[in-house]
Amino acid sequence: MDLQQIGVQHPIVKRILDIARNTASNRAGLFVAEGLWAHEAVLEAGVPVEVFLWCPEIPHSDQVERLADQLASKAARSYRIGPRTLARIAERDAPDGLVCIAQLPRWDFDALPLGGSALALVADGVEIPGNLGTLIRTLDACRADCLLLTNRRTRLTHPKVLRASQGTSLRVPVADFADPEDALDWLQRNDFTVYLADTDEAVPYRSTRFARRSVLVVGSERYGISKAWYGKGFARVSVPMLGVADSLNVSVCASILLYEARAQLDGW
Amino acid sequence: MDLQQIGVQHPIVKRILDIARNTASNRAGLFVAEGLWAHEAVLEAGVPVEVFLWCPEIPHSDQVERLADQLASKAARSYRIGPRTLARIAERDAPDGLVCIAQLPRWDFDALPLGGSALALVADGVEIPGNLGTLIRTLDACRADCLLLTNRRTRLTHPKVLRASQGTSLRVPVADFADPEDALDWLQRNDFTVYLADTDEAVPYRSTRFARRSVLVVGSERYGISKAWYGKGFARVSVPMLGVADSLNVSVCASILLYEARAQLDGW
Repeated sequence: MDLQQIGVQHPIVKRILDIARNTASNRAGLFVAEGLWAHEAVLEAGVPVEVFLWCPEIPHSDQVERLADQLASKAARSYRIGPRTLARIAERDAPDGLVCIAQLPRWDFDALPLGGSALALVADGVEIPGNLGTLIRTLDACRADCLLLTNRRTRLTHPKVLRASQGTSLRVPVADFADPEDALDWLQRNDFTVYLADTDEAVPYRSTRFARRSVLVVGSERYGISKAWYGKGFARVSVPMLGVADSLNVSVCASILLYEARAQLDGW
Repeated sequence: MDLQQIGVQHPIVKRILDIARNTASNRAGLFVAEGLWAHEAVLEAGVPVEVFLWCPEIPHSDQVERLADQLASKAARSYRIGPRTLARIAERDAPDGLVCIAQLPRWDFDALPLGGSALALVADGVEIPGNLGTLIRTLDACRADCLLLTNRRTRLTHPKVLRASQGTSLRVPVADFADPEDALDWLQRNDFTVYLADTDEAVPYRSTRFARRSVLVVGSERYGISKAWYGKGFARVSVPMLGVADSLNVSVCASILLYEARAQLDGW
């Protein structure tokens, strides 16, 4: 590969840091990927790559070399960087010499294909990017149709979301609703029955009969589900808490409920 | 409270940092707790408090003040510190002026009370303290009897274990087995049937009939369960993977399986 070399002063370096740290406007949904597995996820998902940076001086495998070739031909712009520039950019210890700016897929929820049975999740006010990523990883695993974000407190472009989701944040349809009422409109237009994950006045999950189109709502780590979702007659579903603590980790709780719903919908 | 003031040069400050960062031997299982909720967990669990440090200059609630009184009378030694010393010690933003060194409970697995039905987890080589803490939080929630650590790669005294477990790391019986064979001996002496969480050649979890005393084995985030657990004729149990990724987060996977086993054992 014959790439132009850029240094630590090049504007792209600042741009990468701005995207990774969310210190500039990012309406296009750009994110930074680092290292072998993240770049494999980017290529497999087929998302647009705006900039690819490659540091061949970092010891790397043949696999990384082949990936670099593919990325250089796919990216709108590609540059070579030295180890010092890479160290300035890289968030992780072993980024294999690969860094790129890529774009999250855009999902048109009005054209989302939904079958006779459908399964969705609302993450309302989830704060920790690792939890959001883990939720998405489970949504992929249980073949849920989509994720709706309301009262969003972390961003899908956070590096930890890509990592915790194992790259599935590029595969699972996600929509961010500024107003929870808009999320509810979409859900009602699409015949979803809403289940709030709550431990108060709730039916235990194994006794809940999930409707053919079911959506679970989980809330923030500290405050639970926001008021906007209450007082609307929605069913509440709980995972029995049998010990001293009064709640489960949000992604654990959602995963237990989602798999129960999936098993019921698919009859296993 | 009339406590002796100590400064940033006092040996206890270094001792706290050594314990939090694991930079000195820690055979006694000491850990550092910071802030309101962690100290509430320490008091509720009734674990020994070796040192309590209190910085009354930090703005705090009456609740924190009352807790400080209780801790000062419980701790073997208590000191007052200034905001500068607190800042040197504190890992988190808002430690409420409270820091202590406390001791994990010691569990005698030979005297562990087990009923006719029992549920246990082996965490084999789990690397990420947040995952270990989340596993323990689920073990408390599903009323599992105990956790066995084999090929341990993170430590129970890590500040993130206490936090991710929501303090239940002080409540759930845990034993650390240097040799997996010793864990297996204990399990077999106690009539546990072993289930390896694996996706290869496994029975889906909803089709698995868990024995009255069941132990699940989960492995490291990167490498899965170590060889020591294979080739022994143990059943394998899987959570169906219906999407593009080939695995779930380890605490999510364990939680789905543990709750299935609990529901079967308790008949709900």
